[in-house]
Amino acid sequence: MTLDATHDPALSSWVDSANGHPDFPIQNLPLGVFAASEGDYRIGAAIGDRIVDLGALVDAGLIEGEWAETLGEETLNGFFGEGYEAASQLRARLSQLLSDKAHRAAIEPHLVDQSAVEMQLPASVGDYTDFYVGIHHATNVGKLFRPDNPLLPNYKYVPIGYHGRASSVRVSGHPVVRPSGQRKGPDQEVPARGPSARLDYELEMGIWVGEGNALGDPIPASEASQHIAGYCLLNDWSARDLQAWEYQPLGPFLAKSFLTTVSPWVITPQALAPFMEAMPPRPDGDPEPLPYLQGGPDKAALGISLDVLILTEKMREAGDAPHRLSHGEAASAMYWSAAQIVTHHASNGCNLQPGDLIGTGTLSTAKESGYGSMLELSNGGKKAIDLPNGETRTFLEDGDEIFLAARCEKEGAISIGLGSCSGRVLPARA
Amino acid sequence: MTLDATHDPALSSWVDSANGHPDFPIQNLPLGVFAASEGDYRIGAAIGDRIVDLGALVDAGLIEGEWAETLGEETLNGFFGEGYEAASQLRARLSQLLSDKAHRAAIEPHLVDQSAVEMQLPASVGDYTDFYVGIHHATNVGKLFRPDNPLLPNYKYVPIGYHGRASSVRVSGHPVVRPSGQRKGPDQEVPARGPSARLDYELEMGIWVGEGNALGDPIPASEASQHIAGYCLLNDWSARDLQAWEYQPLGPFLAKSFLTTVSPWVITPQALAPFMEAMPPRPDGDPEPLPYLQGGPDKAALGISLDVLILTEKMREAGDAPHRLSHGEAASAMYWSAAQIVTHHASNGCNLQPGDLIGTGTLSTAKESGYGSMLELSNGGKKAIDLPNGETRTFLEDGDEIFLAARCEKEGAISIGLGSCSGRVLPARA
Repeated sequence: MTLDATHDPALSSWVDSANGHPDFPIQNLPLGVFAASEGDYRIGAAIGDRIVDLGALVDAGLIEGEWAETLGEETLNGFFGEGYEAASQLRARLSQLLSDKAHRAAIEPHLVDQSAVEMQLPASVGDYTDFYVGIHHATNVGKLFRPDNPLLPNYKYVPIGYHGRASSVRVSGHPVVRPSGQRKGPDQEVPARGPSARLDYELEMGIWVGEGNALGDPIPASEASQHIAGYCLLNDWSARDLQAWEYQPLGPFLAKSFLTTVSPWVITPQALAPFMEAMPPRPDGDPEPLPYLQGGPDKAALGISLDVLILTEKMREAGDAPHRLSHGEAASAMYWSAAQIVTHHASNGCNLQPGDLIGTGTLSTAKESGYGSMLELSNGGKKAIDLPNGETRTFLEDGDEIFLAARCEKEGAISIGLGSCSGRVLPARA
Repeated sequence: MTLDATHDPALSSWVDSANGHPDFPIQNLPLGVFAASEGDYRIGAAIGDRIVDLGALVDAGLIEGEWAETLGEETLNGFFGEGYEAASQLRARLSQLLSDKAHRAAIEPHLVDQSAVEMQLPASVGDYTDFYVGIHHATNVGKLFRPDNPLLPNYKYVPIGYHGRASSVRVSGHPVVRPSGQRKGPDQEVPARGPSARLDYELEMGIWVGEGNALGDPIPASEASQHIAGYCLLNDWSARDLQAWEYQPLGPFLAKSFLTTVSPWVITPQALAPFMEAMPPRPDGDPEPLPYLQGGPDKAALGISLDVLILTEKMREAGDAPHRLSHGEAASAMYWSAAQIVTHHASNGCNLQPGDLIGTGTLSTAKESGYGSMLELSNGGKKAIDLPNGETRTFLEDGDEIFLAARCEKEGAISIGLGSCSGRVLPARA
């Protein structure tokens, strides 16, 4: 992908709050769906602390294109289906409209404050798939079960993934009701049903599928990145005790399906272009990817830093700021790229559809400071995680709020952020 | 569930082909979506070898009710969401309209021949979940890996299930393109990608979800059967070699997601009422279900016989009839009932939605004559399955067509069938 005028660090916007904005300068322009009132869903782009109403710009004749009418819909599924080139055209036009003061008078009526609206899911999720490409996470979790042989033999050949639950994907801020389910401790004869005692978060990147493929037609590696509409943060909330008891032999199910949280803004591949990196070299002795997984883009790794923060009930009452639990990054965590994930997913002919959501799996770094779940930070619940106010955690307690955050920073480019992905744990229902 | 006039064996229809029809007498009245021309999707009910157009009957004022306008939609999702009582009211009205000759003149213009239309998926599948409640299948498959201990410790406590792929669910007749993927034989050092050499079918019942539940609100066992809109046949096509290599640790993925086939007609719980049975007693020593899985209907077992037939390319060329591979039944195969499946699925607060599809898992009987997959019939590919024309199979070959069939028969009731669920294997794409 080549950089163009939309990435120029010198470019500024007549929307004052965009200039120097940590997340949404004019070089970002992520897409989302907002509601100024109940049920009034509109597609917009974030610019500083405001949102430009894209459907309104189309109605006003300020955005044109064969794909433009999809921006008047209530979700981004239609626009995602228009493909990669449509997104590039929209970005170029928005960059022009929001930088050139000549358009200010025409556009200003179609700006709304982000604080005045409720963000929605950007798309209706047809299928949600969760992968497991975070190799340090897979290694850390594997060690809990198989200390000498943490990674299974297929891991370095197969981008491991499994189907998730689409109906329970929600946007940032949705409460996390502690799930109940069957769990059986090692000392218990029989299982019992009750609230999860090992509720956890998982730090992931989400991939929104753009243009789909027909059932039966794989997506070649060379084309896979063109099928990605954008990225978000994703929290794959996990009930570890439910998972341990239920997951054999068919994988996680109720331990995950109670809620998955995503950040509301879709960061386009076009916006991420300056921050993409070459995939990290495979460790010595690792096999080359099979041919069908080769031939993707030269810069397929996401140059994104990742943070997890916690705010407990006591911290909230004391007016404390959230405490950072980890700081890591995506590029070195992902053994397979987003493009390889897409290619593998469709390699059996499975049809991906616009608005499908794909999680990368938990992205932990090799170092403990970048572990992406409490399961890893607490070493399976055996080690307390110390918080600054003297509290400790091994897993999440009621009232805990988890914030995922992500940023792209690179010399010679304006840094951008991915926005917020948070959720607060509420007690189990009676 | 009580029986009413709609089940009366003496009831006949003025649609002549319904009387004595093996699948669709007036006591059945299954719902589906048909297209008389491309893109013209309409909701109908099968009666004999014809279909009555329900949207047209609503337009003509012949069907009334708060829920009636949903019958003018292009899928059954809306009607399913209207709940159990709406379906009972529709059944009562259809039974009256199609038995009483006084209505013949008004309705006849709204009948179409089944042979003149293309059946569609009855609903847009939000989420597809596949369970594993066929205890004989789970035992047979487990024995291939663990001869002494085939069932895992959770099996008799947890209705095991996992998320499937919704986008690749298709209606009966859709071709089965042999999938390609990674597989590694026991004697191979490394995996290679290629067409599956162990393509199989799986005989399952499908459950269509009716009224949904809100995220966070479980469905009590006593209410679960009210959330079922109906049943179908389901073929969970499986590439055993892909599955063996990919499925650890997160479960089956590409081995299943290339296609799932369902029969087009939704057999309502109201139609099945005369054929429901008490759940078979649990074997001595098995634990009682945990309390949240108790309290369902007294007659929760599906009294349905199940057949699998094959027609190979050679048989087709010779004009042979399909050959029956197995004959079994659902009631003794299912360790957990459909109602228990629904309750368990929502027990962590996961929201089910109208038109979600749930598979039971493969339904094999204890006897070999009722095994529901080639994996079992061929004992993991080690034993040839003999066909009458001298051909043998261990797994499916290109050109093979598989037919699933199901019937309900009981003394004192008119027998009904579930219609056709078939698919023919096409060669892998280059």
